[in-house]
Amino acid sequence: MSQELSGNLLVAQSGGPTPVINASLAGVITEALQYEDNIVEIYGGLNGIQGILNEQLVDLAAESQQTVRALRQTPGAALGTCRYKVKKQQDFDRILEVFAAHDIRYFLYIGGNDSQDTAAKINALAVERGYALRVIGVPKTIDNDLPVTDHCPGYGSAVKHIAATVREMALDNSAIGQHDFVSILEVMGRSTGWLAAGSVLAKRRNALLDDAPHIILLPEERFNQQAFIEGVQAVLRKQKYCFVVVSEGLLDPEGNFLGADATRVDAFGHAVLGGAGEYLRALVEQNIAGVRARSAKLGISQRVAAHHISQTDSDEAFLAGKAAVQAAIAGETGKMVVLVREDKDGNGASYATRTSLTPLDEVANNVKLFPAAWIGEDKMSVGYQFSKYVYPLIQGEMPLAYADGLPKFAQLIAERIARKLDAYDVTK
Amino acid sequence: MSQELSGNLLVAQSGGPTPVINASLAGVITEALQYEDNIVEIYGGLNGIQGILNEQLVDLAAESQQTVRALRQTPGAALGTCRYKVKKQQDFDRILEVFAAHDIRYFLYIGGNDSQDTAAKINALAVERGYALRVIGVPKTIDNDLPVTDHCPGYGSAVKHIAATVREMALDNSAIGQHDFVSILEVMGRSTGWLAAGSVLAKRRNALLDDAPHIILLPEERFNQQAFIEGVQAVLRKQKYCFVVVSEGLLDPEGNFLGADATRVDAFGHAVLGGAGEYLRALVEQNIAGVRARSAKLGISQRVAAHHISQTDSDEAFLAGKAAVQAAIAGETGKMVVLVREDKDGNGASYATRTSLTPLDEVANNVKLFPAAWIGEDKMSVGYQFSKYVYPLIQGEMPLAYADGLPKFAQLIAERIARKLDAYDVTK
Repeated sequence: MSQELSGNLLVAQSGGPTPVINASLAGVITEALQYEDNIVEIYGGLNGIQGILNEQLVDLAAESQQTVRALRQTPGAALGTCRYKVKKQQDFDRILEVFAAHDIRYFLYIGGNDSQDTAAKINALAVERGYALRVIGVPKTIDNDLPVTDHCPGYGSAVKHIAATVREMALDNSAIGQHDFVSILEVMGRSTGWLAAGSVLAKRRNALLDDAPHIILLPEERFNQQAFIEGVQAVLRKQKYCFVVVSEGLLDPEGNFLGADATRVDAFGHAVLGGAGEYLRALVEQNIAGVRARSAKLGISQRVAAHHISQTDSDEAFLAGKAAVQAAIAGETGKMVVLVREDKDGNGASYATRTSLTPLDEVANNVKLFPAAWIGEDKMSVGYQFSKYVYPLIQGEMPLAYADGLPKFAQLIAERIARKLDAYDVTK
Repeated sequence: MSQELSGNLLVAQSGGPTPVINASLAGVITEALQYEDNIVEIYGGLNGIQGILNEQLVDLAAESQQTVRALRQTPGAALGTCRYKVKKQQDFDRILEVFAAHDIRYFLYIGGNDSQDTAAKINALAVERGYALRVIGVPKTIDNDLPVTDHCPGYGSAVKHIAATVREMALDNSAIGQHDFVSILEVMGRSTGWLAAGSVLAKRRNALLDDAPHIILLPEERFNQQAFIEGVQAVLRKQKYCFVVVSEGLLDPEGNFLGADATRVDAFGHAVLGGAGEYLRALVEQNIAGVRARSAKLGISQRVAAHHISQTDSDEAFLAGKAAVQAAIAGETGKMVVLVREDKDGNGASYATRTSLTPLDEVANNVKLFPAAWIGEDKMSVGYQFSKYVYPLIQGEMPLAYADGLPKFAQLIAERIARKLDAYDVTK
């Protein structure tokens, strides 16, 4: 594979935002500027692959250095993302057409497993057509469910926010001089429990059994109502309150989302989807006499909490963006950057990460479940091995800029690149 | 009224915690140390009036200066609170008995309107019995619903968190390249809309009409389903997404909590209380074709978010604690500290507060509703006068201590004072 390839670089973002997806974008821009012999222009595609189909490209080199720096503390996705799933051959043809029209020779896609699947197919088509292109994926997801990579940029910051929130809510719960209180926090995780599990860090050391969260429910284990009720009762015998963290994707024994029971209908006959947390709240109050329960659901707020960006996570997201450019320049294609943990002592103190590469096909559409070996015997807790795994990922804080009392975020000027092709209708 | 009174001071906290209720406690302790001729010992009552009934007192002078300083960045309620409502005469008798046994001559109660009612009654009984006692209330509530005072310590920090969260969620909502999306955030406010209204600060200047939140629903206005649906549709004609902030206490035209409709029952025949946010989510999806909606509910997390403590709020909470001690030393009793806004230019730039006093009876059990004049004509927005009112309250950030990647909070050593009385059964 020739290492000499000159043309323009295109970077885009895809899927659900994270607190550090823009740090990866900053890493790409920063590194791309180092290779002016190979990379002529640095373009961004708006709204992921959907914007590329629509030829919505912007000139990232036109952004100020100040903006690029501020991207590291800006959650969301500065270029916009999409959830459009490229399936039709004519879409893939159009993508290569847009690439050719704008001399795109480097395509970097920051996203989760769906996005890496798209990247893999674009790469395969370019190879088939003999179009010189290097495609590198950059991992991104708060869900931490991508295979091969030790962990995903975005996960550490979301866990930092969830664990901090549990610790704060526990302060509140324990302050209220009231026994028999159950506090339920629903977190994201449609098919994996990595986020819910991360809440275990809210426990202070030496108090693993007594501190919140007391019960952690992951989608990897079907919900056992009786065991749950008994678990809550057991905690309430020892503690003033019981803190439960539940994944939104928790399934009942029949494999339905908790709270999506068809027998629960509203006045219109529609299923009531109160969510897993609200379902558990009602369940506890209905099944344990004298107990008061409240639920909270962080929803989208948990993937954009700027004040809890983990420095480690941000640095790794930035590093992954840089590594993607380096790999493409070195002649790699059809690969995704992965994070490799280096921890010689195995105790977190010597934690470090380096990047490596894995074929996009290894990642595309695969899901890494929370390991069964890390789930407690009671199926409602996680083990110490996991705490050791997750602890380094939330370390370090980022200074955050404020204006008028609120966080100040970067906003791209997003200078548009002139279209060279006819309009394209993605809906056809 | 004699200004010379020597004895011990007792401070306690009550009701729902706030991010700065401990700043008021720190203010009380700091100021009380200045009057050693009058204040011999500084005691804290655990779990509010309930702990006082149980003679659970701790020595606050035994806490380190480091701890007292750290209280200013510790949400929750370091002494613990209660929701116990003192009604029985024998409870009041017991309180005075405990006070006499421990020579309590200064009683400061940090709490909301229920708590100020209790304080007022204790004061009245002491006067009746001829027991020399000075009772001063310190306002506290994120709900901002206490009368007389311009605003309540705790409110500014909760608004800062809510507005920051809306701004962050809006980054996420706008990043997703998807039209017809409705984002709903349920915030606290069982009977007043101050917190929901505060979310208006998430709007950037000069973009008041376009920015999130687009719709704000307060409990002061009954829910109008048709107007709401039309409002959402109107926003979606102009914007990619519609952001709705709703108070948990929103009422339907019949005066029932939204989402507590008796026709919504689960398999057991129990009413399904998904909450106002989840109710609106289902309503939107059922009534507007092609629209996807998601709801989040901050729940308890919104009254304990340490990272969004407003410096202004924290300073005022501290000031209110100090002012309570000063008032008691000056011979005042049966009063609550109130915040008085001084803003000569009326533009927020010259914002300052001083403290004053108001009779506890003026505060006890009264609720300050969100002013009708500040609600928009559409009943789904708030006016600029309110923005000017609330803007100064969220200004300034506090440096937060972290350990192991999570916020580090103060914990009292809570050295117990030996009991002098027989045990008391509050349940009898």
